[in-house]
Amino acid sequence: MLTLYYARQTCALASHIALETAGAHYEAVRIDFGKEEQRSAEYLRINPKGRVPALVTERGILTETPAILQFIAQIHPQARLAPLDDAFELARMNAFNSYLCSTVHVAHAHRRRGYRWADDPAALEAMKKKVPQTMGDCFALIEREYFVGPWVLGVNYSVSDMYLFTLADWLEGDGVDPTRFPKVHAHRERMRADPAVQRVMAAQTA
Amino acid sequence: MLTLYYARQTCALASHIALETAGAHYEAVRIDFGKEEQRSAEYLRINPKGRVPALVTERGILTETPAILQFIAQIHPQARLAPLDDAFELARMNAFNSYLCSTVHVAHAHRRRGYRWADDPAALEAMKKKVPQTMGDCFALIEREYFVGPWVLGVNYSVSDMYLFTLADWLEGDGVDPTRFPKVHAHRERMRADPAVQRVMAAQTA
Repeated sequence: MLTLYYARQTCALASHIALETAGAHYEAVRIDFGKEEQRSAEYLRINPKGRVPALVTERGILTETPAILQFIAQIHPQARLAPLDDAFELARMNAFNSYLCSTVHVAHAHRRRGYRWADDPAALEAMKKKVPQTMGDCFALIEREYFVGPWVLGVNYSVSDMYLFTLADWLEGDGVDPTRFPKVHAHRERMRADPAVQRVMAAQTA
Repeated sequence: MLTLYYARQTCALASHIALETAGAHYEAVRIDFGKEEQRSAEYLRINPKGRVPALVTERGILTETPAILQFIAQIHPQARLAPLDDAFELARMNAFNSYLCSTVHVAHAHRRRGYRWADDPAALEAMKKKVPQTMGDCFALIEREYFVGPWVLGVNYSVSDMYLFTLADWLEGDGVDPTRFPKVHAHRERMRADPAVQRVMAAQTA
């Protein structure tokens, strides 16, 4: 039994979709960022970073989306959510996921979480102002260089599709017109129609 | 034959150490950030992100440190640089590496590359000012929660040690006293004495 700690409208959605798609035996526990539950003593015992996702396993607790996604794929090999038998293809998947976590998610975070990197209110405003440009640049690069099609990595669906879908869903809020990126945009529509994705979206908004 | 593109004093050091330690058949090509070579048309064909590291393989080009590190470990299993046979332990390694790339490296980058996230000069100064705090907080968390000892993951040396060493080497420049973190600091000294690390440091500064 796995337990996923998530919050609404966060990158934890990717791990949640991966668990649901893999047919994992899991439960999902919602943390309310509005009530700052991620900073409670109880939650900090689960994830000392005060972030989501956190995945509680029988062996211990895992954090960080790219690590959790590969783990879910590895323990559910029958679901074929990652190119597990090919080190190069697996690295290509991890490079994509790593770019999402270290560059795309970080670009997005400067809109509402600029306080992580500066204290001056004017600096936070300056960061917020640049987010449409940085997020737009990130997705332009993904569209041009990294989205192979029909899925992110090519013919095979993978956890990278779930992660891209999760972050692409932030574009409008970040002031970027998603139709600028036709491949990513069509992918997002296809993902949205996926039954496992729909079950997770329904659970997270219930 | 692998070709690693690196620049001095960047996170590419971790991949370089991994290749050297694994006994890989590789060459290392230096990109001069002082001359903005990372933005040259020639280099952008190798890595459209204009960053290092990039690892050219017979199958294609890989980017992003966590992906490259796991790849090097996987294609050199005899070097035992990652817990390849244990999905949970491998995820623990990747969670550590992912934290370094998405949080620690990002905290550091606000000192000299704040222009990625804001245009206002005052905002860049505000970001720079907070770096000693953010980098200090990151390493305090690593010291307290994630450094198992004697190596990052416990009894077995891994690519996470190379990556931690690489980022720990930035502490003084970021205005953080490294002796605040005794385990990480002792680890850094041990890493520095490693023959493969010494060969790589010599090659990068030659």
